[in-house]
Amino acid sequence: MIEYGDLVYIWNPKKGDSYMVKVTRGASLGTHFAQIYHDELVKHDFGEGVWTEKGDLYYLLHPSLGDYTRHIRRQTQIIFPKDAGYIIQHLNLFSGCTCVECGTGSGSLCCTIAHFVGENGKVCTYDRRPEFSELARKNAERWGVSDRIEFNVRELSEGFKERDADAVYIDIPKPWEHIDKAYEALKAGCHLGVLVPTVNQITLTLEALEKFNFVDIRVCEIMLRDYKTDPRRIRPQDTMIGHTGYLIFAVKTLPLPKRPAGSGNDTETEQPEE
Amino acid sequence: MIEYGDLVYIWNPKKGDSYMVKVTRGASLGTHFAQIYHDELVKHDFGEGVWTEKGDLYYLLHPSLGDYTRHIRRQTQIIFPKDAGYIIQHLNLFSGCTCVECGTGSGSLCCTIAHFVGENGKVCTYDRRPEFSELARKNAERWGVSDRIEFNVRELSEGFKERDADAVYIDIPKPWEHIDKAYEALKAGCHLGVLVPTVNQITLTLEALEKFNFVDIRVCEIMLRDYKTDPRRIRPQDTMIGHTGYLIFAVKTLPLPKRPAGSGNDTETEQPEE
Amino acid sequence: MIEYGDLVYIWNPKKGDSYMVKVTRGASLGTHFAQIYHDELVKHDFGEGVWTEKGDLYYLLHPSLGDYTRHIRRQTQIIFPKDAGYIIQHLNLFSGCTCVECGTGSGSLCCTIAHFVGENGKVCTYDRRPEFSELARKNAERWGVSDRIEFNVRELSEGFKERDADAVYIDIPKPWEHIDKAYEALKAGCHLGVLVPTVNQITLTLEALEKFNFVDIRVCEIMLRDYKTDPRRIRPQDTMIGHTGYLIFAVKTLPLPKRPAGSGNDTETEQPEE
Amino acid sequence: MIEYGDLVYIWNPKKGDSYMVKVTRGASLGTHFAQIYHDELVKHDFGEGVWTEKGDLYYLLHPSLGDYTRHIRRQTQIIFPKDAGYIIQHLNLFSGCTCVECGTGSGSLCCTIAHFVGENGKVCTYDRRPEFSELARKNAERWGVSDRIEFNVRELSEGFKERDADAVYIDIPKPWEHIDKAYEALKAGCHLGVLVPTVNQITLTLEALEKFNFVDIRVCEIMLRDYKTDPRRIRPQDTMIGHTGYLIFAVKTLPLPKRPAGSGNDTETEQPEE
Repeated sequence: MIEYGDLVYIWNPKKGDSYMVKVTRGASLGTHFAQIYHDELVKHDFGEGVWTEKGDLYYLLHPSLGDYTRHIRRQTQIIFPKDAGYIIQHLNLFSGCTCVECGTGSGSLCCTIAHFVGENGKVCTYDRRPEFSELARKNAERWGVSDRIEFNVRELSEGFKERDADAVYIDIPKPWEHIDKAYEALKAGCHLGVLVPTVNQITLTLEALEKFNFVDIRVCEIMLRDYKTDPRRIRPQDTMIGHTGYLIFAVKTLPLPKRPAGSGNDTETEQPEE
Repeated sequence: MIEYGDLVYIWNPKKGDSYMVKVTRGASLGTHFAQIYHDELVKHDFGEGVWTEKGDLYYLLHPSLGDYTRHIRRQTQIIFPKDAGYIIQHLNLFSGCTCVECGTGSGSLCCTIAHFVGENGKVCTYDRRPEFSELARKNAERWGVSDRIEFNVRELSEGFKERDADAVYIDIPKPWEHIDKAYEALKAGCHLGVLVPTVNQITLTLEALEKFNFVDIRVCEIMLRDYKTDPRRIRPQDTMIGHTGYLIFAVKTLPLPKRPAGSGNDTETEQPEE
Repeated sequence: MIEYGDLVYIWNPKKGDSYMVKVTRGASLGTHFAQIYHDELVKHDFGEGVWTEKGDLYYLLHPSLGDYTRHIRRQTQIIFPKDAGYIIQHLNLFSGCTCVECGTGSGSLCCTIAHFVGENGKVCTYDRRPEFSELARKNAERWGVSDRIEFNVRELSEGFKERDADAVYIDIPKPWEHIDKAYEALKAGCHLGVLVPTVNQITLTLEALEKFNFVDIRVCEIMLRDYKTDPRRIRPQDTMIGHTGYLIFAVKTLPLPKRPAGSGNDTETEQPEE
Repeated sequence: MIEYGDLVYIWNPKKGDSYMVKVTRGASLGTHFAQIYHDELVKHDFGEGVWTEKGDLYYLLHPSLGDYTRHIRRQTQIIFPKDAGYIIQHLNLFSGCTCVECGTGSGSLCCTIAHFVGENGKVCTYDRRPEFSELARKNAERWGVSDRIEFNVRELSEGFKERDADAVYIDIPKPWEHIDKAYEALKAGCHLGVLVPTVNQITLTLEALEKFNFVDIRVCEIMLRDYKTDPRRIRPQDTMIGHTGYLIFAVKTLPLPKRPAGSGNDTETEQPEE
């Protein structure tokens, strides 16, 4: 049975619209089709369809992390699952690791990282705006991962407090001005992720990464295309998101030892051709 | 310092090519630029660049899960990070959960799911071909997650052994013939993922999902576009992967209770318009 | 100077919005920023910027065919320039050729084909709905190509009147039911184009093309991504059109002569592997 | 019947490969499946399938312009049909117009423009490298449009000879250095097209366009996705072209008259918001 405190994803087949509720004694949710009383929800099981008095139908489902992300309370642009899923695989994340993130924003990526680093993992997130830090904390509490997150309200110019972090991710307006801070906080051999919305920012970020000892630099973008689901008329949706951001990944290395005298020819340190 | 047993991602800046090694006493790796002796690797730290006698350079890095996936030993098509990242966010995965998967293949997605369900989570994977099961086990051991995976060699026609699984994912040639097995194994309110390469398979899978009590059905595809990383000449790579597969997600619901007599109008159970 | 009868593309820099007018004595155009009197337009030259009394600015430009297509008066879905441009290059169109088209719709593709077949070329277009035929005629007149177009109001079940057409293009709900009509109208060795919105229609159309002597069959889709144009913040637009249709092309061949006895091995007529 | 001088598109169903031949007395073509003698071709009609002695099959088809473009003899990157089709609709091209182009390259776009401006139209193309001009001339002759093209071997620093051209298209390494030349050659109110491969070039080009009186500036890219054509297994091809170039369009306007004193408020000349 659904219990107080459970997160329930309510899905209405008529319009395909959906709601996210944390079941709370005495609370209720206004939807376009009915008023839903939380005290009624605990009389049902996950997976049940419920008829309203007016004959509408809604289902009580477990939200996936992707569902939660899409329904997160936001005051900023969020990181969508298409990007978040790629990011978490290209940072050095594992159960028990420490990941440093800036800025916190509404906490969408923060929750996703915290979700996947496990009970013993830690996300140290930074934002200079206390109201975002607070919103993100609430979103993380709702998803049940706030105890793995340390919220810092701080200007990035002061640098991160962490050293030897397993991963660093930055999503700030001028990442190129703070690559030194990321370098400082990150463990050698580990991965930095950066998200930037414009191509101009890619250029400046790559130039900054080149100045520090970052290698294996990659830039990509991910396009998600949703399809209509009538089996007799399958086709992509008429409109799609055209752009969210460009993802940049790089790995921190230590200062290069001097090349042994007399070794090799003159061209071996040149950049890879593409 | 790097230790025996560590997984090291070796990256060569000249060509941008890379190697994945599990450091083993006495072993060595032939690369196009040098023979690399594992016993030398343990004299270095992660993040270091090493000069070869011929004057070539290589870096010793921590592999990200994405790096590992791309270097996995394979005998089948693998699930690429762009898709895997979306899948793991749209199944009901969390630390300690149980996820059922079929088919195992080379184990790429299996490793990714096992990575993110944590030490107390479990992946029950099925494949009818013992050689794939064996390959996947080795790949999972190498990544250090094999103890979270139960490898089953079994025809899907026999069904899954699990009931009330938190998530089910199937990637088989005719998923529509086995939606009943997925339904049986999955907990109500939880998420099923299906990957199919062709549009014809989408149609048949959607028809099968409609027959069972699956709701909130979604179909999508994800396109990854890599960019060249010269900051003075930023542009997408000349070629890209045109297609891997279509992702289908759906949530299991319980048989619908009878609609109360006299409630509402006649149209409320119709499918959502799009 | 602009003359009565000219087509003028009016572009307002403030919002980037635009209008298409055929300059007509005594007429006027209501825009969101000003009332524009056609009799004023003829006092200006193409390329001029004009200040309104309220201090707004608008430019008088020559419309490109693409601009015209986007502003066409429509009662149906139109063929967008991204698709039209690909279509006209993959049909056998040239100055003076004859192209058969069905259905006419609002006439957007009809105008584009008529534009490029030149004064001596001909488009024979069919639609069973007289109101669309009429609308398309007006749109073609406005663009100045109606004299190259023959508008037929006719069910496709009656077939096309033409034989040995240089090109045939069909955009109808069930193209697979009328491949025989297209075959009949088309000159041997020439190109057929088909547009279908759904993947299910691709399957059925390909099956029909296989039954007739069509070869060199291709299926594709074209995605257009518009970018924001602030040079300091270049990035794709936030949303884009996710889908218009799938394009199918094929070439009509004559019935295959019997293969000479004793020639070659047994496998040579099989379809190309992909 | 096929005649000497005809352009024939030879398509082999076995591998889907194809050849382009101008039928010439006494000539022959080596293919991977047979030697094809031109003197045999004139015994057949367009649309016929021909069996070789070894039992292979090939078809004699009319090439579409898109087929021709793909088979053009090249020493440079060519403009692919997906881009060419968009370009020709967004320049002010019509039967009898004059279009200025730089650089000529292998002549692929030049042929396409010449094809669509008709017998009375003209393409004035420029390239500083005589060998490309020569190659492009041969390609244009082969397609039968060389009499509509004026080939200029000339540095763009000298400017174009034309004034009041109906359309200008430039595809050169540093278009921003020559926007003045394009402005000079183009008729007011008419359209300029620019192709650049990198995002850095977009920035610089937009900045240059802003300095001149160009308006209605647009930037886009076009992605083509080919599909496999087995009706039972429809899916996109495994690989696709990831990038060719970014297309930029703008319209030349005349110097803006002074805004009437006392008119309107202060903000009306600001750039459109996006």
